[in-house]
Amino acid sequence: MCTKYTLGVDFGTLSARAVLVNTKNGDIAAESTQNYEHGVMDKQLPDGTPLAKDWALQYPGDYLKALKAVTNDAIDKSGVSPENIIGIAIDFTSCTMLPVDNMGQPLCFREDMKSEPNAYVKLWKHHAAQYEADRINAIAMERGEKFLSRYGGKISSESMLPKILQILDESPEVYKETGRFVEAADYVTEQLTGNEIRCNSCAGYKNLYSKTSGYPSHEFLKAVDPRIEFLAEDKLPEKILPHGSLAGYITAEAAWTGLARGTAVAVPTIDAHVAVPAVGINRPGQLLMIMGTSGCDIICDEKEYKIPGICGVVEDGVLPGYFGYESGQACMGDHLDWFAKNCVPVEYYNEAKEKNISLQALLTSKAEKLSTGESGLLALDWWNGNRSILSDGNLTGMILGMTLTTRPEEIYRALIEATAYGKRRIIENYINNGVKVESIYACGGISGKNKMMMQIFSDVLNREIKVSPVLQTGALGAAMLAACAAGKSKGGWNDIFEASAAMSKEPTEIYKPIPENVKIYSDLYEEFIKLHDYFGSGGNNVMKKLKQIGIEQKQK
Amino acid sequence: MCTKYTLGVDFGTLSARAVLVNTKNGDIAAESTQNYEHGVMDKQLPDGTPLAKDWALQYPGDYLKALKAVTNDAIDKSGVSPENIIGIAIDFTSCTMLPVDNMGQPLCFREDMKSEPNAYVKLWKHHAAQYEADRINAIAMERGEKFLSRYGGKISSESMLPKILQILDESPEVYKETGRFVEAADYVTEQLTGNEIRCNSCAGYKNLYSKTSGYPSHEFLKAVDPRIEFLAEDKLPEKILPHGSLAGYITAEAAWTGLARGTAVAVPTIDAHVAVPAVGINRPGQLLMIMGTSGCDIICDEKEYKIPGICGVVEDGVLPGYFGYESGQACMGDHLDWFAKNCVPVEYYNEAKEKNISLQALLTSKAEKLSTGESGLLALDWWNGNRSILSDGNLTGMILGMTLTTRPEEIYRALIEATAYGKRRIIENYINNGVKVESIYACGGISGKNKMMMQIFSDVLNREIKVSPVLQTGALGAAMLAACAAGKSKGGWNDIFEASAAMSKEPTEIYKPIPENVKIYSDLYEEFIKLHDYFGSGGNNVMKKLKQIGIEQKQK
Repeated sequence: MCTKYTLGVDFGTLSARAVLVNTKNGDIAAESTQNYEHGVMDKQLPDGTPLAKDWALQYPGDYLKALKAVTNDAIDKSGVSPENIIGIAIDFTSCTMLPVDNMGQPLCFREDMKSEPNAYVKLWKHHAAQYEADRINAIAMERGEKFLSRYGGKISSESMLPKILQILDESPEVYKETGRFVEAADYVTEQLTGNEIRCNSCAGYKNLYSKTSGYPSHEFLKAVDPRIEFLAEDKLPEKILPHGSLAGYITAEAAWTGLARGTAVAVPTIDAHVAVPAVGINRPGQLLMIMGTSGCDIICDEKEYKIPGICGVVEDGVLPGYFGYESGQACMGDHLDWFAKNCVPVEYYNEAKEKNISLQALLTSKAEKLSTGESGLLALDWWNGNRSILSDGNLTGMILGMTLTTRPEEIYRALIEATAYGKRRIIENYINNGVKVESIYACGGISGKNKMMMQIFSDVLNREIKVSPVLQTGALGAAMLAACAAGKSKGGWNDIFEASAAMSKEPTEIYKPIPENVKIYSDLYEEFIKLHDYFGSGGNNVMKKLKQIGIEQKQK
Repeated sequence: MCTKYTLGVDFGTLSARAVLVNTKNGDIAAESTQNYEHGVMDKQLPDGTPLAKDWALQYPGDYLKALKAVTNDAIDKSGVSPENIIGIAIDFTSCTMLPVDNMGQPLCFREDMKSEPNAYVKLWKHHAAQYEADRINAIAMERGEKFLSRYGGKISSESMLPKILQILDESPEVYKETGRFVEAADYVTEQLTGNEIRCNSCAGYKNLYSKTSGYPSHEFLKAVDPRIEFLAEDKLPEKILPHGSLAGYITAEAAWTGLARGTAVAVPTIDAHVAVPAVGINRPGQLLMIMGTSGCDIICDEKEYKIPGICGVVEDGVLPGYFGYESGQACMGDHLDWFAKNCVPVEYYNEAKEKNISLQALLTSKAEKLSTGESGLLALDWWNGNRSILSDGNLTGMILGMTLTTRPEEIYRALIEATAYGKRRIIENYINNGVKVESIYACGGISGKNKMMMQIFSDVLNREIKVSPVLQTGALGAAMLAACAAGKSKGGWNDIFEASAAMSKEPTEIYKPIPENVKIYSDLYEEFIKLHDYFGSGGNNVMKKLKQIGIEQKQK
């Protein structure tokens, strides 16, 4: 039999990235990336209609254009014949959702809806449904709804129900015209197969669905708003399928992908989750840290525990047969970027230019010469709020310990250390609530680039960290799902465990804790926790008060 | 009678500045400035002998050289005949002290002492006697020494007794050879007159002397160290005279000053204190804020109150007949300089260059466009520790409220606001403990330069602030003392009240609080106080712990 390949396409916030992968050994035959034409719309619609604060929209046509570009480009580059490409799968940011009509067409494609913001895709980081999220949380808490415990005790404004409710609140006309509210992952997949499906992980992590208890009850939904009592039956896709199962086959209409008719198409999943098999994780106790502009952690366990402050736990949500837990940090690289752009003096800029390295590389080279604890600085990394443990988007950054001799690289290092302390807090939360954490893996841009940061994480966590050599973990993981959907008889695999065993790459770098640093970081972590709890858990609500005053004053 | 003049010479940290002033109207006939040849020695002695951390020394010969340069230069420039110069006075940083032999010669002039750091001038900001200060405070508290209440409850390591004790501890040979420990102010004055005197304000504010109770008791001094039981009798100048009284006359040997023999020489005083008559303050209730790299406040009252956290209160220490109170802030412009040097990006640097303004001027122009409270930031301005209220050099800077959209000018403004909140805390401390604060004056570099900062102070304090137009308040104040020493019959004045009335300049700029800002700053001040007390008064000692860890790790 000829070598077989699958295509994995990772839909990120700004671009789609495809890899064409050998199903036997995971070798990558070709890669391709395409930015979305309209990117993230957070100021205005394409026709100039202005958007309010905290909105973040996308245009669904961009996804299809980008998909067409990357699949054809990857196939062309590789020289692989389409008949040897046995499957395709995508992964997507989530909850990235849109309203479609009864024919499955996005409402924003309609002429009469093109100036209506609520008709567009609401991106995962659309944060304008906080009012609706607060309402949902208040009612759920009052009613003692059990589903709350699967989401750390609180629904995020990023999840699907607040976004739907915002549409209903603000644009009842759009709500009325909506046939289905769909995840972008499912929408794009349907364009390939003609079949309407819903992936289990999006439904679980982002829309309160549970394999055992289904959606929240009619009574609850009615209490939130009588008009959504039958939301699930009326406006959500019926068929919820596990990711990596068969969603259908490439149709004649989907020839634009460059793929052969009849090629297997997998049920998609969430971008962070599909990185798990990509790095070779195949069992409980193996925590994956995805380290990019923000941070995401995924871990599986045999049991379902109620864990405060996490993003969610879903049965089969990550690996079949296990409960998959998700948590995260709203800043991982974002506040470092902010610092490098805003807080580094001209001398450093010139030095970096002279050495032909980035400002962050220069800061890192200076920061790694410091002894642990030498700076006397301590920070809370909440520049973008706190996602896990405190789950509070209105918390803000803090740093203390500055003197007249404090240097930029010391602050930079303190910002990195803060993310490591935050991660330790998250891991301790898992352990204290029953989840076993036996080993730690890392992937994402930072894990391969910033050795100092990885060593600091190892020292703060007092753990070995195994770094995956794979750059496109999302796309590679999707290619594994595609191999599952195609099946072993076609040159794919029976399940994700087989696919991961064959197609993932062993960690190449392993960071080990340095005992003398561990000791000092342990003392500093104690101080971090005191501040974390003081500012985060009601000891002093100054951050929220200041944010509120800031918003009021800005509007003047 | 011809127009008469006096010379005032202000000895600062880095230079001496002279003004030659018309005694009738305060008009300045000439000015002159001269830097000290050796500046501040904090790394090594002139012969290369290294200095430990926190040392800050000066060379007494530099003072005489600088004095010679500025007096002759001012006289030359003005064209005034020396016989029309009726008096001279100096003011000085304090406690800036040195050991002299029995002939009044500095020990560091001796060949066998020139490599001995303890033989040199210890500058006011020499902070290496903290160990001795702690010992003195512990013993004084244990014994319930009443003098502590005149210094806010705690002696600063900057004052004279810790500095003497350090010499005794480290260099008993220097201590033994010392005939007198003198303030630099008194040393320089003696070079003009040949008379050994001690100014009352230095003795009061910086060496625990009180007009009514004298120096601390023999029992106390013995408890500190048996060898200093009779320190005052053995090694301190006997004659304590009020500043502005007659110290003597220019001798034949002091012809190098360019002044005529017999010219009156006044008893000197502390630099900050002499600014009070210079801005026209002549009674209780008028608080003067001196705003430079650090901040100093002086206010008089009819009564002596025990006020926690102030630097000191001395009868006749500022204006005769009143109790003069001093407090201060360790950072006023220093942390703004730090920020501009370390934390401002290249774009701002280029913009400032293009506009041909300083980085701070650019930051100010951007910051003044912000609404009050808009940034959502709040800082504690303890980059150099906290001088008044908390009196703790080991506290450090803090800032919170940062998000990914925080801009440098917002942080810059928050650092300014923090100094204004700190000032409000100091003023409330006076008021709560009985001192009347009826009006507020400002002088010093910042008061004339940064209008935004002055408006913020006015808004935060909810007070009018009267800004003195005089740039050299220290030197002008000294010239007033000289006019008092010369006396009315010679064309001077009977006392400092007369001198100030004639020679001071009316405030030209008056800042008035803007009601809507006052309201918001009042809310923000409440938040400031919570953090001030939490980090400063034992709620969380994280700053001190981090500083300790930092020192330990740096030494590795």
